[in-house]
Amino acid sequence: MAVKGPLTGITVVDLSRILAGPYCTFLMAELGARIIKVEMPPKGDDAREYGPFRGGKSTYFSSINRGKQSIMLDLKLPADKRILDALLAKADVLVENFRPGTMERLGYGWSEIHQRYPKLIYAAASGFGHSGPWSKRPAYDMVVQGLGGMMSITGNPGQPPVRVGMSIGDIGAGLYTAVAVNAALVQRERTGEGVKVDVSMFDCQLALLENAIMRYTVTGEIPGPLGARHPTITPFEAFATADGYVIIAAGNDLTFGRLAAALGKPAMAENPDYVSNERRLANQPTLKAEIEALLKDKPTAHWLTVFETVGIPAGPINDVKQALAHPQVEPRNMLVTVDDPRSGTLKLVGNPMKISGAADPPMREPAPELDADRAAILKELRL
Amino acid sequence: MAVKGPLTGITVVDLSRILAGPYCTFLMAELGARIIKVEMPPKGDDAREYGPFRGGKSTYFSSINRGKQSIMLDLKLPADKRILDALLAKADVLVENFRPGTMERLGYGWSEIHQRYPKLIYAAASGFGHSGPWSKRPAYDMVVQGLGGMMSITGNPGQPPVRVGMSIGDIGAGLYTAVAVNAALVQRERTGEGVKVDVSMFDCQLALLENAIMRYTVTGEIPGPLGARHPTITPFEAFATADGYVIIAAGNDLTFGRLAAALGKPAMAENPDYVSNERRLANQPTLKAEIEALLKDKPTAHWLTVFETVGIPAGPINDVKQALAHPQVEPRNMLVTVDDPRSGTLKLVGNPMKISGAADPPMREPAPELDADRAAILKELRL
Repeated sequence: MAVKGPLTGITVVDLSRILAGPYCTFLMAELGARIIKVEMPPKGDDAREYGPFRGGKSTYFSSINRGKQSIMLDLKLPADKRILDALLAKADVLVENFRPGTMERLGYGWSEIHQRYPKLIYAAASGFGHSGPWSKRPAYDMVVQGLGGMMSITGNPGQPPVRVGMSIGDIGAGLYTAVAVNAALVQRERTGEGVKVDVSMFDCQLALLENAIMRYTVTGEIPGPLGARHPTITPFEAFATADGYVIIAAGNDLTFGRLAAALGKPAMAENPDYVSNERRLANQPTLKAEIEALLKDKPTAHWLTVFETVGIPAGPINDVKQALAHPQVEPRNMLVTVDDPRSGTLKLVGNPMKISGAADPPMREPAPELDADRAAILKELRL
Repeated sequence: MAVKGPLTGITVVDLSRILAGPYCTFLMAELGARIIKVEMPPKGDDAREYGPFRGGKSTYFSSINRGKQSIMLDLKLPADKRILDALLAKADVLVENFRPGTMERLGYGWSEIHQRYPKLIYAAASGFGHSGPWSKRPAYDMVVQGLGGMMSITGNPGQPPVRVGMSIGDIGAGLYTAVAVNAALVQRERTGEGVKVDVSMFDCQLALLENAIMRYTVTGEIPGPLGARHPTITPFEAFATADGYVIIAAGNDLTFGRLAAALGKPAMAENPDYVSNERRLANQPTLKAEIEALLKDKPTAHWLTVFETVGIPAGPINDVKQALAHPQVEPRNMLVTVDDPRSGTLKLVGNPMKISGAADPPMREPAPELDADRAAILKELRL
């Protein structure tokens, strides 16, 4: 019998706003946890004001808050603090992404929390973490992508800088926070005791760069941007065709030989400049020009068929529309439907964590209106 | 008393190779789990052959396999299968990233696994997942970045394509797999039963694009690359200075007013073309040119000091060396030391998941040599 997911029965009190924290609790919601979003008056989560809108409701907000509940509390008022206290007494996890120090000022720092609710897991996702000289500074996705080195290895050499097109600063931190919170839940099942999870957006940028950091510390060479090219394997990059680009991933001599043959120039594989990956890497600009000269008269679709027939890993550069039309999307339920009372039918991304016995319905619950679940929650708490 | 981490006591049998699977088990190792890497003869994990090398050992491999154990098993031999069986009987999690069908051919498909080891969690990270028409196809990081739409929103408009500089195809899948496996462990503590976790690299690319997908399905407009610019907030991008770039994140009218004043041109904030975010977004090219004209005579460091003084979120575009010199890196223990018997002292990225009561030592264990733990493991299994 399918349960909602492996976290069914887990309750999360979610004080977080905008993106990193809400993305963590979005993942937990998709895994079956109950998320009670506590929002501040007068307007709640700032993301409710981010477009695009439909029926006056933020679809930015809907995308990562679907299936959550909402209650509005003013944490400066004793009456509302009592409601939060009652929620925390029954919850398994508290997630927040305030600037460090805010929770202490509200009377909900880790030491108070842990003393009053020893089983509660407290997770903080912040810009720079709860320690260190930059702890209290704010952070924004793009600032962190710049500070952490991500932008320095993304882009074309000599061209203007490039951010990763999605908010890897926030989404990355949300992912690591979810990994850590779930691990803390495993531990709590065994020990009965909650812990504090402290994740920083900046630290997560470094974590994501593990390979680039290793290359720098080992070789002393500072990694730079490489366009659409692999740093150490050649040919393993995007090549221009008659109508766009094709990505070719020829990871070894055998595949390179197949590629040379498929391009109608088998002798290329015998060229001493190209006989090994090491040689191909050393002569990458020449090899790229030679391959593009052979590709340029036919469109990407032609080459994809040719390469698939002979077993050369290759692919197109899909835009979002094309990506959603991929034949895996429907069978994997990666585009789900939300019927929102205000916005109407929304199509949002599905859950990539497919788990046996867990429901993965094609229809999902909408994101809550601000304070929508107040009455039900208060009744449940007998307040 | 500090334990190694919240997953202390959890044992993972890790059949995975190269990146997505090993990154999942790397995260679990950092959280305290014991990882027994099962490698195939004759050479083990392919990543052992990926440079750069030090003392003949792959530091690519060391970066994501530190602190794991290794045993070499030929899963086509009955004797070695018995060893794997004994390992699985004592393990909590099995992780693999073979092409779908491989485990079935070896006799370790999910139905066999679940029947024989009902408590074991089975996690598969594959290119396209264990269902759908593309299930059996191989995938590579860059091919998936192209197929899933990530490359279509990363880069400068009209310029050659750009991949995300780190392997977001693999690392992303490793992260979602770790979130899911830890959730499955929570469930198993409660139900006593293991589940199958099925994560696809392609699905994870879509998941990471949640906002871009929502924008497309809601507005019908296909998101394109925006360089270093935020899609809906202005000014929120990288600007050229005398010696490089500065990222300015002016998210509202108040901050924009401060920016205009800090640039010595307070009237800019009164310009009808720039009075609201909506107007600034509509006139972004003009506004950018105007701001860059004001920035161009002074270096990035100058502007960072100015902006910090008046409270305008801003930052540099650090390279990896500069990122590692950030004042948060040492206090957050984000660059750890590994004394490797062959490679000598390695500096590798730390663990961004800081958890109270969990050890986060500045020295970490090295990555195992191939088959290094065979004798100890066989003794422990009484084989």
